[in-house]
Amino acid sequence: MDFFPSALENLIDKFAMLPGIGRKSAQRLAFFLLSLPDEEALSFAAAITEAKRSVGCCEICQNLTDGEICAICRNTQRESGVVCVVTDPKGVLAIERSHEYGGRYHVLHGVISPMNNVGPDDIRIKELVARIADGDIEEVIMATNPDTEGETTARYISRLLNPFGVKVTRLAYGIPVGGSLEFADEATLMRALEGRMEM
Amino acid sequence: MDFFPSALENLIDKFAMLPGIGRKSAQRLAFFLLSLPDEEALSFAAAITEAKRSVGCCEICQNLTDGEICAICRNTQRESGVVCVVTDPKGVLAIERSHEYGGRYHVLHGVISPMNNVGPDDIRIKELVARIADGDIEEVIMATNPDTEGETTARYISRLLNPFGVKVTRLAYGIPVGGSLEFADEATLMRALEGRMEM
Repeated sequence: MDFFPSALENLIDKFAMLPGIGRKSAQRLAFFLLSLPDEEALSFAAAITEAKRSVGCCEICQNLTDGEICAICRNTQRESGVVCVVTDPKGVLAIERSHEYGGRYHVLHGVISPMNNVGPDDIRIKELVARIADGDIEEVIMATNPDTEGETTARYISRLLNPFGVKVTRLAYGIPVGGSLEFADEATLMRALEGRMEM
Repeated sequence: MDFFPSALENLIDKFAMLPGIGRKSAQRLAFFLLSLPDEEALSFAAAITEAKRSVGCCEICQNLTDGEICAICRNTQRESGVVCVVTDPKGVLAIERSHEYGGRYHVLHGVISPMNNVGPDDIRIKELVARIADGDIEEVIMATNPDTEGETTARYISRLLNPFGVKVTRLAYGIPVGGSLEFADEATLMRALEGRMEM
């Protein structure tokens, strides 16, 4: 039996669907939203709609952007011959925070993971291959997370790029093995970029 | 410097504003929403709007409802002479789960908390006093959380109701002191209801 009005139950369900949010937390968040002034609660709803409407993937690097080409790809000051391959947009953020990297990115939006039914065609690998095939790029830095799936994805891409004669490197293991790129600190990321090795 | 499109930054800000959600979690949730199919993400936004639009407070007990009078107050099978006073709608849910209580409720929507600038007029105490002044009610069970603020609020209301000659009881301390009503298990709540004492 539901004790809450159906619209509230529905909102709780939506929150409970989010990763890492249990039923109790979902209730807490839904009650909090209801307790907000109308304007603030509705601006939350509008933020979701607007983000979903306006944010898409950069045609070149697949990073999230609200234009066709993202700010990093548009920036002519950045080295266009180096591409850093990351799992997701948070990887871009993490590496930008190290202020050590002046090249471009490629966002895979996932890793190869047979356990989760994610194959090479489910992530943005072909877009990367197309960029490499176009010429111009001299080095590809693999910066997927240093876990099994990240490693597998990096090796897979490395083999795929072999015929193009492009230099493929991997972030040095300054980043703690088994961790997530997102939580690495700036100094560690800096060392990892400096010590990158050819693979 | 923002590395994400502004609409995405805005969505992250909204999530980060929620209680118990830090910046990293907010990012994770915003990315998750963006990764959903359009339809699902927009239904999340719609759920917020709809909950905010349709859910209000019951005219009698102040519990959340999508009508003018909530289902519990409309239910003529329930004892109308007993009112259980809870801090928030989650308290109603917790007590209903014990299947031990057949009376009505009164939801305060907060506790008296000078530290947080919440005085007696900021919560639904006058609505409770009006219900008691109307007659009919024989017993008021205080079921605010068994912490300092809950106790203070219960004592305050108890004194306020004194002139009306209504019996005011308090949930027995089967509920763990210092805890939150929301997390009490059914058996504990049942014992707490059975052992309630006059105050």
